[in-house]
Amino acid sequence: MRDVFRSDLAQLAGTLVAMAGEVRHALRQATRALLTADQVLAENVLADDEGINAMYRSVEESVYELLARQSPVAGDLRAIITSLHIATDIERMGDLAEHIAKTSLRRKPEIAVPAELHEIFTEMGKVADRMAKKVVSVLAERDATLGAELEKDDDEMDALERKLFKALFESEWQHGIEAAVDTALLARFYERYADHAVNAGKQVVYLVTGAPLGE
Amino acid sequence: MRDVFRSDLAQLAGTLVAMAGEVRHALRQATRALLTADQVLAENVLADDEGINAMYRSVEESVYELLARQSPVAGDLRAIITSLHIATDIERMGDLAEHIAKTSLRRKPEIAVPAELHEIFTEMGKVADRMAKKVVSVLAERDATLGAELEKDDDEMDALERKLFKALFESEWQHGIEAAVDTALLARFYERYADHAVNAGKQVVYLVTGAPLGE
Repeated sequence: MRDVFRSDLAQLAGTLVAMAGEVRHALRQATRALLTADQVLAENVLADDEGINAMYRSVEESVYELLARQSPVAGDLRAIITSLHIATDIERMGDLAEHIAKTSLRRKPEIAVPAELHEIFTEMGKVADRMAKKVVSVLAERDATLGAELEKDDDEMDALERKLFKALFESEWQHGIEAAVDTALLARFYERYADHAVNAGKQVVYLVTGAPLGE
Repeated sequence: MRDVFRSDLAQLAGTLVAMAGEVRHALRQATRALLTADQVLAENVLADDEGINAMYRSVEESVYELLARQSPVAGDLRAIITSLHIATDIERMGDLAEHIAKTSLRRKPEIAVPAELHEIFTEMGKVADRMAKKVVSVLAERDATLGAELEKDDDEMDALERKLFKALFESEWQHGIEAAVDTALLARFYERYADHAVNAGKQVVYLVTGAPLGE
């Protein structure tokens, strides 16, 4: 019974690792689609999100099954409920990649982001990618030190967002209201993606160390 | 044992009702603070969000306790896990009210929203308030018909958001980039608040009827 439980729990963890890999891929594709107005790539992101949502549902089903079948307590119970929280964060990261892809599609054949801001968005994409990669690692290796690294990456993302808003508000903006609004919303999507990566990381740290999550 | 479980579950449901009442109050205050640049009101929203977060944590603790102590299966298990999902949605509604209040504080003593858009934001506030009220009712009375009503309200919110974006993009915008960006982000906060209200409602419907949630 115990061995079955361990094996089921490992399978659940494997699904989370795969899901995190998928939302990492989604954000990479979404950023490329955004900066090149690549319609096919953007549509891939939308199609792939269905798969991510299906993975979420499979996590939820496993959680119900494990709880009903095994009546876990203490650490085992915590591991299961935490998996559900992590899946929620990762699923949301997928949605945010999808929002980026949708913005790119809505504005095609134009590139939604003005050329002088491509560098900042490229950076935001890189930081987000690094964070998603750490979420994969922290899930696969249960390495709590990556939790702290994710917080630092998130500070970097916040700094990039501030830089972007500064460019929006303090320069002579020549690209009209729609591009300004899209730029601001896109920045928020990257920033939220990063927040959910931090949350997912914190949940793993909580699982490994029992350290409280804070706000 | 069974009676204790019923009573614990009822207490959990009571906390959700109270939480929903709090985030309804938060959004009402945030909308008023936004449209009058009322600093005290906005700061109240920020302070009250601590209480909402504490309620979320108490829901999560109760969920752990109920799962560990009672090892529920089937409908009881579903009721508990669903409570956790609902609490997550409601907590997030509180965060969004807080975002609105923060925007108002950042722009004070100016009113963040241009006068000609106050009517749309007043409407968004009203629709959001009506939705939060229905979330309270659906939780308190387990009335599945309110789920469908929430979907209709959400359509109304989406229409208001489109109207707002139209005003932003198609009129001769005279208020500068910062006001345009704040307006767009604020619209998104209301729209997300409504989405989470729909989600919370759907979860209750699922609990009452067993109907699938869809996407």
